[in-house]
Amino acid sequence: MTVADAGTTASALTVRPVPGLPMVRPGDDLAALVEQALAGAGIRLGDGDVVCVAQKVVSKAEGRLIALADVTPSAEAVELARRTDKDPRLVQLVLDESTEVVRSKPGVLIVRHRLGLVGANAGIDQSNIEHGDGGEQALLLPRDPDASARRLREALQAGSGARLGVVITDSSNRPWRLGTIGAAIGCAGIRVLDDRRGGHDIYGRELQVTLINRADAYATMATLVMGETTERIPVAVIQGLAPDAVDEPASRIIRPLEEDLFK
Amino acid sequence: MTVADAGTTASALTVRPVPGLPMVRPGDDLAALVEQALAGAGIRLGDGDVVCVAQKVVSKAEGRLIALADVTPSAEAVELARRTDKDPRLVQLVLDESTEVVRSKPGVLIVRHRLGLVGANAGIDQSNIEHGDGGEQALLLPRDPDASARRLREALQAGSGARLGVVITDSSNRPWRLGTIGAAIGCAGIRVLDDRRGGHDIYGRELQVTLINRADAYATMATLVMGETTERIPVAVIQGLAPDAVDEPASRIIRPLEEDLFK
Repeated sequence: MTVADAGTTASALTVRPVPGLPMVRPGDDLAALVEQALAGAGIRLGDGDVVCVAQKVVSKAEGRLIALADVTPSAEAVELARRTDKDPRLVQLVLDESTEVVRSKPGVLIVRHRLGLVGANAGIDQSNIEHGDGGEQALLLPRDPDASARRLREALQAGSGARLGVVITDSSNRPWRLGTIGAAIGCAGIRVLDDRRGGHDIYGRELQVTLINRADAYATMATLVMGETTERIPVAVIQGLAPDAVDEPASRIIRPLEEDLFK
Repeated sequence: MTVADAGTTASALTVRPVPGLPMVRPGDDLAALVEQALAGAGIRLGDGDVVCVAQKVVSKAEGRLIALADVTPSAEAVELARRTDKDPRLVQLVLDESTEVVRSKPGVLIVRHRLGLVGANAGIDQSNIEHGDGGEQALLLPRDPDASARRLREALQAGSGARLGVVITDSSNRPWRLGTIGAAIGCAGIRVLDDRRGGHDIYGRELQVTLINRADAYATMATLVMGETTERIPVAVIQGLAPDAVDEPASRIIRPLEEDLFK
């Protein structure tokens, strides 16, 4: 049988960094800034292109900066901060964003974010954050990254006339492998998981490992070219894909709790 | 400070599937087959190109096929097979290839492979394997995938005159995210981990998450275009990278046991 997919083609893919985004501030129209950067880089969006945007600039535009001075840590946060050698106010923000502490030890605080993402510090970032008038700030993940991706997609499609995908990317660590790769935390207009489990191989045997995470692959390609410079270019475009008939959110990627192998 | 790296540039990357590889058999000269496929696809290798080859064809060329009929399961394998609903002979092969069973339950057998890779069934594959005269066969990972990558690199460099990287790719699952991405299990001629932990962000704050796994990013890009067709094209080339001055093995990626967060 053929498991080929109308939305995919075995052709070359190109991932292109998009420099020139200005410093993003709360309330900025991120889609407009991305459009200007694309124009400045001479990139014209076409059908099937996937625009990848780093979580950090999405969060900044959405005003997800919190002044640590405004955070009052609970007794639980103070105790967890002591055990992990972290700022109690940061730990309070991590707890506020999470449903579960997965692992904690000195220097390490791995939690399950309310979005289902498992990672260090609930994705809260303190690098490349402007120091506000209130002193140190922390940047939370977007409140609903899939919704952020949908809004960006609508605006970028309206501006370009092209049928696009949008992926909001973050960097991700894994338990047994060193070094970060990309993760898709918000998606619109793409097939996130390519399910080939019903297929058969060329000898008629049922395919074993066939749920391909396309969204994380896009995020990883984008993160690679984004990370090439000190400035951390926060936008990249993947070209060469056919437009996807399927539109899935990144929330589909979260492994259901009942399938969690560590429970 | 500048953390830019001579071996990297913020330019577009292209990943190109290389169709046309014939069915690979034990003893085949894989480098010669890859060269023929590249020529057939009209791809000329240049300095900095990274040739990605799926583990499956490397293992086949290296004769890592085992007839299940030749395997006598131990009492331990029989018991573990009962608990995981798997063939006791396959479980015996998994145990032979592993140093530790990480998790087991019905349908799931996650082990630490002797190479340090943590995953299902020690990477042993039963799909797209020809049924030999001895009946069902299983395909083990290459004995030393970094050595396989070095050999492939030497042969492909000799044939092309270009300064290349080689990555042997496998598909990889993660505990909390659905869908496979690529993993680099053998590398030659590339910087595997890009360590930016000594750098500072544009506000002078020390960078927090800055060990970028380039090798897994290459493997993920390659795996994405390899998986687009039923035939699972097992070769892809990444172009647009500057030649890397650093040559690291994939074994560097394995998180040291003493840093294992699940111990």
